[in-house]
Order: sequence, then C-alpha cells, then structure tokens
Amino acid sequence: MAKVNSPETEPTNPTKPVKEQLAKAMEKKAKIGDAKVTLKTPKGTRDYGPKSMVIREKVLKTIVDTFKRHGAETIDTPVFELRDVLLGKYGEEGGKLVFDLADQGGELCSLRYDLTVPFARYLAMNKIQNLKRYHIAKVYRRDQPVMTKGRYREFYQCDFDIAGQYDLMVPEAECIRVVDEVMTQLDLGDFEIRLNHRLLLEGMFSLSGIADKDFKTVCSSVDKLDKSPWAEVANELINEKKIDEAAVNKLEQYVRLRAQNPDLDNLGLLEKFLEDPEASQNASIVTAVKEIKVLLEYVELFGANQNVVFEPSLARGLDYYTGAIYEVVIKEFSFSGLGGTKSDNPDDQVSVGSVAAGGRYDKLVGIFAGGKGKSNVPCVGVSFGIERLFSIMEAKAATEEMPGRTNATQVYVAAAQKGLLKARMNVIRQLWDAGFNAETSFKANPKLLDQMQYCEARFIPWVLIIGESELAAGVIQLKNVKDREDVKVIPIADMEKELTSRLNGST
Amino acid sequence: MAKVNSPETEPTNPTKPVKEQLAKAMEKKAKIGDAKVTLKTPKGTRDYGPKSMVIREKVLKTIVDTFKRHGAETIDTPVFELRDVLLGKYGEEGGKLVFDLADQGGELCSLRYDLTVPFARYLAMNKIQNLKRYHIAKVYRRDQPVMTKGRYREFYQCDFDIAGQYDLMVPEAECIRVVDEVMTQLDLGDFEIRLNHRLLLEGMFSLSGIADKDFKTVCSSVDKLDKSPWAEVANELINEKKIDEAAVNKLEQYVRLRAQNPDLDNLGLLEKFLEDPEASQNASIVTAVKEIKVLLEYVELFGANQNVVFEPSLARGLDYYTGAIYEVVIKEFSFSGLGGTKSDNPDDQVSVGSVAAGGRYDKLVGIFAGGKGKSNVPCVGVSFGIERLFSIMEAKAATEEMPGRTNATQVYVAAAQKGLLKARMNVIRQLWDAGFNAETSFKANPKLLDQMQYCEARFIPWVLIIGESELAAGVIQLKNVKDREDVKVIPIADMEKELTSRLNGST
Repeated sequence: MAKVNSPETEPTNPTKPVKEQLAKAMEKKAKIGDAKVTLKTPKGTRDYGPKSMVIREKVLKTIVDTFKRHGAETIDTPVFELRDVLLGKYGEEGGKLVFDLADQGGELCSLRYDLTVPFARYLAMNKIQNLKRYHIAKVYRRDQPVMTKGRYREFYQCDFDIAGQYDLMVPEAECIRVVDEVMTQLDLGDFEIRLNHRLLLEGMFSLSGIADKDFKTVCSSVDKLDKSPWAEVANELINEKKIDEAAVNKLEQYVRLRAQNPDLDNLGLLEKFLEDPEASQNASIVTAVKEIKVLLEYVELFGANQNVVFEPSLARGLDYYTGAIYEVVIKEFSFSGLGGTKSDNPDDQVSVGSVAAGGRYDKLVGIFAGGKGKSNVPCVGVSFGIERLFSIMEAKAATEEMPGRTNATQVYVAAAQKGLLKARMNVIRQLWDAGFNAETSFKANPKLLDQMQYCEARFIPWVLIIGESELAAGVIQLKNVKDREDVKVIPIADMEKELTSRLNGST
Repeated sequence: MAKVNSPETEPTNPTKPVKEQLAKAMEKKAKIGDAKVTLKTPKGTRDYGPKSMVIREKVLKTIVDTFKRHGAETIDTPVFELRDVLLGKYGEEGGKLVFDLADQGGELCSLRYDLTVPFARYLAMNKIQNLKRYHIAKVYRRDQPVMTKGRYREFYQCDFDIAGQYDLMVPEAECIRVVDEVMTQLDLGDFEIRLNHRLLLEGMFSLSGIADKDFKTVCSSVDKLDKSPWAEVANELINEKKIDEAAVNKLEQYVRLRAQNPDLDNLGLLEKFLEDPEASQNASIVTAVKEIKVLLEYVELFGANQNVVFEPSLARGLDYYTGAIYEVVIKEFSFSGLGGTKSDNPDDQVSVGSVAAGGRYDKLVGIFAGGKGKSNVPCVGVSFGIERLFSIMEAKAATEEMPGRTNATQVYVAAAQKGLLKARMNVIRQLWDAGFNAETSFKANPKLLDQMQYCEARFIPWVLIIGESELAAGVIQLKNVKDREDVKVIPIADMEKELTSRLNGST
C-alpha cells in the first residue's frame, strides 16, 4: 500500500551522476513519508467543482444550442478505441501523444485522441453516407500540460461535422457560420477565423522545391509562424529538418504573404497568388484560390465574414485534412477588454491560442471502409477545444461579481424549534410530490440561524419555517430569504399555491 | 499496419493440445486476411447513434432533474485516477476488473471503476466537510460483458451522495426517496428497493462462527442468493471457500429469514431478530435492527416506503460500505407489463438485475485524509447504472410507435427550381440571425421532392420554399410538412413573424 508513484520521465540532468540523482529521489521519497496515497489528480487533469461546473455547463449549452440550430443530431462513441483504429491518423507528433491502455489480455486499446477518427470509424462501420452530427466528449493527449492556459491531457472537444457528397464549399461555409455564432455568443473578446487550403500548401511547397516526403514535417514548422518569427522557423527547417536552404527561402515569399501584406483584404491576398508568374501556373494553387474564393463568398452570404482572415501559413498538423482548413484564435484577451475596450497592460492578458479548428477530410472514412471509392464519405467539420474557453470564462468569473449559484433549490424547509424533524419531513414530502426543488437540514435539531445562513450562502430564494404553535394551527411561515423581514403566515394547505405564484413572479 | 488484435484471454480448452489450438488461431488469423482495421468498438463497449442518444438523454434528464429537486450540485473528475487512489477499494473481485493505463513514463494511472472513490478523493483533497453532489459520468470495468442485459465494460453511473456529519438515517432516507422518484418517473415496471445493514451482516456472521477474515468472501457468496438457491451458495461456501459446515448451516437460519417469511412485513421480519435468543444479545444486530427501524420510519414519512423490502441476505460486494446498504431491482420486466399488467409469457421478459445501489461509507474519505478522526467525512449515496435502464427503454422503444425525432430543426429552406443556392443562403441567414433552428440542402441544385422527403424523414415541421417568380415578388411559400397542401404565400419580410406564431401554436 505504501507505493510511491514513478517519477515523470523528464530529461535527466546530464551533469549529475546517476548515483547523486538516485539519492535525491530517495530523499524526496522519505519526505513523502508513509502517506498511503498522493492526494492529486493525474498530471494534466483537473477536477471541476460546482462553481466551475456552472460555467462549463453554460459554455456547453451555448455550443449545443448552436449545433442544434443547424440541425445536427448527436452520437456517442467509447472513450477508448481499438489501437489500430487510431494508428497513423494523427501525424508524426500526434501519434506519440496517444494514451494506451495496459495489455491486460484481450484487445489492444487506446484512449481517443480526438472525436474525428471515431466519427469516421462510426460512419464506415455503419455504412452511413450522410450525417450532420455533433459530439461532445473528452479526449486524451499525453502532451506537456499548461494548466493556466487551459492546455490539459484530458479535455472536452465539441465537434460539429457534416458527412456526405455535397457541392463545393457549402458545408464548409456552414461550419464557419457555426464557429462565428458560438464565438459571438460566448462574447470573449475579438476573435479571428483563420483560413487556408491544403492544396495551397501543397502547391507552395512544390513550387519551392520541397519534396513530397517532407510535406508533414514542413507543415509542422510553418504552422508555428503565428507564434515564432520567420528566422526561427527557417532555422528549424534548414538546420534541424535539413530542408534545402534555397527551398526554404523560396517558401518564405509565399507563406509570409499575409505577414507582408497585413492591410490587404482576403480577395486582394488571393490575387497575389494569381499575379505571381509561377504560382499562377500551378494547378494546386489555382484550384485552392478558386475554392477559397467560393468559400469566402458563401461565408459572406451567411453573414459570418467579419472575422475571417485568409492566412497562407496556416498548416494544421493533422494528417487527415484534404481541403479547406481553419482555426479560431482569440486575438487579445484582457479582463478590462471584455466589455469591448482593450487593456494596455499586457500582464492583464491571458493568451489561450487556438480555441477551435477544423477542415475537410475526404479520405478518412474511405481508409476504414477498405479504400473502395464507393464506400468513401467526404466530410468536413469543426472542433471546439472548450477547456481554453473555460479558462477564460473562469478568469472572467473570478473578477466579476457573480451570483455563484450552483444549485436549483427553490424552497428550504426550516424549523424554528427542536423536535420538528418529522414535521419537516412531512412538509418536504408534499413539496417533492408536487415537483418543487426543495431541501431541508439532515440534522435532527438544526439552529434556525444556521438554516437561514445555508439558504443565503446557496442563494435559495424561499424558506418555509415550521413552528410548534403554527403547526398546531395548521399554518407555516413563508419567508423571502433575501429580505428577511418579509414574513407571511399561510395555511399549510395553501403552501404549494403560494409558492408557485411567488416562484413564477420572482425566480 | 496489418496488425491483428491479440486474442482474448479466455480459458483454453484443456482437452486439446497447445499445438492444435495454435493451428486454429493461425487459421482464424488467415481468415482476417490483410484487412487493415477491424471495424468494431472494443469488447464490452458500444456506440450510441442519434436514436439511442434521444433515449439516453431522456433517462439522464429524468435523473438529473430529480437530483436537482433534492438540491444537489454537480462536480466532475478525470476519467483516470492515480492507480494508488483506486487500490484496495473494490474488494477481491473488483480489484481484478480495474482497467490500467499503459506505463508510458510518468504516473501510473487506471480508469475509474466507480464515481464514489473519486468523490471521496475529491472531498479529502479539497478538505470539504459537507457536500450534496451528483456526478454523471462513465466508469470502466473489465467484466465479462452481457450486452443484451446492458452489462458493458464502459457504462454510465449517475451518483447522488450526501457528505457530512448528520443525524441518524436522515440522509439515507433522502437517498431512498431519490431512488423512488427516479424509478417511479422512468415507469419501467414494478421495482423493489432492497435494504440491509453492514452491522447486521457482521452480527449474523459472528453469531454463526464465521471468522472476521472471511467476511468479504462470505458476503460475496451470500449476495448471490437473489439468483441462486441456498444449496448452491452453501456448497460454494463449504467446498470452495472452506467455511466450516456448522457455521454455514447456522448462517442459513439468519440470511434466509426473508425467503422463509415472504409474507412478513419489514418490521415483522426485524422482530424475528429480536425474538431470537442469540441474535437479540448481539450488539451489532441490535444496533442494526434499531437503525433500520429508524430508516423505515423516515422513508415512510417521505412517502417512499411502498417498494422497500428489508432483505438480510443483501450483501453488496464493495469494501467501503459501513452502514445501511440498498439496491434496486426491477422485479419483472415485460413489454406487455409496461402499462401495468404483467405478461404471463416468460419469453417476453428481459431480466436486467440491479439498476441502482448504494449505502453508507463513513471511512473512505478518512483513508484519503490520512486516517485522522477530524479529517474524516461520513458519506452516504446511491448510484444508478443506467445502461441497464437504457436497454429496457430501447427494448420498449423498439416495440412502440415512436416519433424518432433526433434533431431540433424548426424550419427547412427549400428551393423550387435550380440556381437558387444563394437565395436560400440569404433566407437561412436571416432565420439563423433571428435564432431559428433552420436547415437547407448542401447541394447547389437539390430536387424539390428530395427536400420535402428530407423534412418528412426528420420530422421537421415547417418548410419555406423559394421560387424564382416569388423571389422577384418579395414573397416565399410557407408550408406545413405533414399537411403538404397547406401552402401559404407570405412576404419575405413577414417570414420570422409568421414562423414564430406557428411554432408557438403547433410545435
């Protein structure tokens, strides 16, 4: 029972000999003493207490209501999948981050890494050709957690996907409208919906002379351009990833077009590709530009274009995207900025990075269906990573005067004297039978002050107070908790009627 | 990529030599061929499609509404815990069924086996002395699944628990009231709330001469009495578990009191213990009888006594119970019986066993808090295993005419001719902006018949049909989907007003 957890496999300090490090570990162990169990959640995970749950449920409701407004149905899949189902779907980096279940005999399984691959498996397994579905569930990644930024190893994803053979960019436009609705309603400050296309990336890479085999690894470097300067990315490509320097320099002129033309609108930036003598001759680039233009037109018709930015350096890491890709970033988050004005103090700002992302993945279902053309199902979707949204909402809640109500209790049954437990039980039974949300103390003889304080602390609006003499007369006191003076004596028989009218009027 | 899953570790047939069995396995593997991925969910798990989700959400809502009616707040904890947190909490049998995560470096973790141990860990870690919480989440057990009976390896638990130092049996009575409310509202046929007390089991075992060390193993046999005859249980105790035959025979006279007195009411059966010359002198039994009497009285005051049955052989397997224990069984489930009458045909009946269980566990938080008296928190609760309830509801749904609606769409935007995609986009944008749940086809030029059939199949109540000439005149057709003839031409400007009044009236 006195087990000690294995230390994290973090890089050991090469300057210290093993012996010294071992001694340090033993010392650490001794300090823990004979405590039986470490009282913590596993690394990268957290509990949600009642107050956090209120915020979480509010965010989830906004998202689910939006998904429903767009006609989506919901499904659920197991938290773990056969390991083979996940294998090879998440790129070089992602694959390393999958949580495996121990081999305890039987099938080899892993925790799901996202909801997209399970969705594709579900479509292929059930031979479904068309489905607009949402799925809200936790996914698992053995990433380095940054709890303050909402980066966890266990986190919710809220996915909205459209499966089916449809016309160019119509489902994509609806996904972006969904993103725009959710972000506008959550009201967490300025956001940007960044847009790109896999074919554009392929075209730019090919023009620059980057080999097909290097596509994924170059993508993963280029995708860092929103956080790192070009010099750093170029250094990584040339010196770490051994990409030809001339190719990298040529790539720069394409992937940095947005950075070099911050004031150009989306159509203007797209024109740059068609004006370029080489790019305008590349079939992939021409197709991508044409498709992005269609998407931008539809998004405008849907009234969701205000925050859409075409960004040629956007290169999401997942292997399965085949067409349009997009992600949402909160441009600047600051406490004072929540009301609309921006804070000048950078310390006020909590950077949370991308809060939603998605794109088209036309071949994933086909892989599961055995690769036959007929069984393939084109898909497009978007996934909200709501832990980051929670972090912002929680930070916001901490600075604001929040009601903090974590229960739904409408009325509390209190006793003014001792010896009234059974009388309280009789009254609350009638309230429960009538469908009221009601509580009473679990103590046989609670103090009246304690009972009133319980109601106040929990924002319960009404209290019914039983007294001996009142009970004998068939009456009960009804009191508004906020306004302690407002005492009214009513017949017990009228209790439900009185409560109903007050709850309809006030709560 | 062409990996084959490890075979399940099931008992090998001892009559066949290893070589023969190996040949058979190789043959099986060859049949699988080079299929890249097995299209299935892991053993003991399942997907929930949109129709199942509607049922599941209905069951969950009934349960959550009841928990809220009793003032509970909600929390959430990670799906895996440090392995040490779970270790030794689930008895001999349970411990073997815990799913471990693979050791990929870092902490050793396991999937949660229930929500009770994580709740106790949460209370101890946050030093919380009082909390009435509910928690709805999936738990994991490497049990032999029986899918038709709703026994899975991944399943939901819906837990309601009351933590705090309170007066005798008051929280227990509320737990039983909660069970009674949920079961009554789900309306799945006759149910029984079976009740016992750990001290009664301890007293009966001690009187019979069973050693303390054998308590758990004897409990696990005695608990089978609801399904197996006494002879079988006695045989297991004497021959397999090597319990003294005289002790087993003496035990029979106590644990079979209910079976031998089927017509006695609960108080009458409790009296049997006080009438027994030996039992009436056993302090544990006397305390248990007294406490059960108090509980029965409170449960009656709460109006939840109709289905409560005191059952001295009830012996829940979990180690952590210290006081009252209870479980709910659906007595008899039959399709024809759902309306109130019972079916005479046993083939109609789906046995699902226990659908909820719980009890008092006063020492679990103390174990995490380091065993100091002051840091202990007494707890009592109940857990609904709703997969079994889902199985019943799904069986019920399959035999009934169900509406089968799996979306919330209020209006569909259709086009009567080709070339109206952008016009549809413009109309649906206005509907979304006004907060309507609205859909339109993702095809550029869908056929009108296909659009109408989509609405019918998905039970969408209203459709707005755009036509070229109508568009030119600033009008649109509003149609009730059920009654195809009901066409009304309205100005596009009045669209929202017309829809609102119709939705309020009809849907």
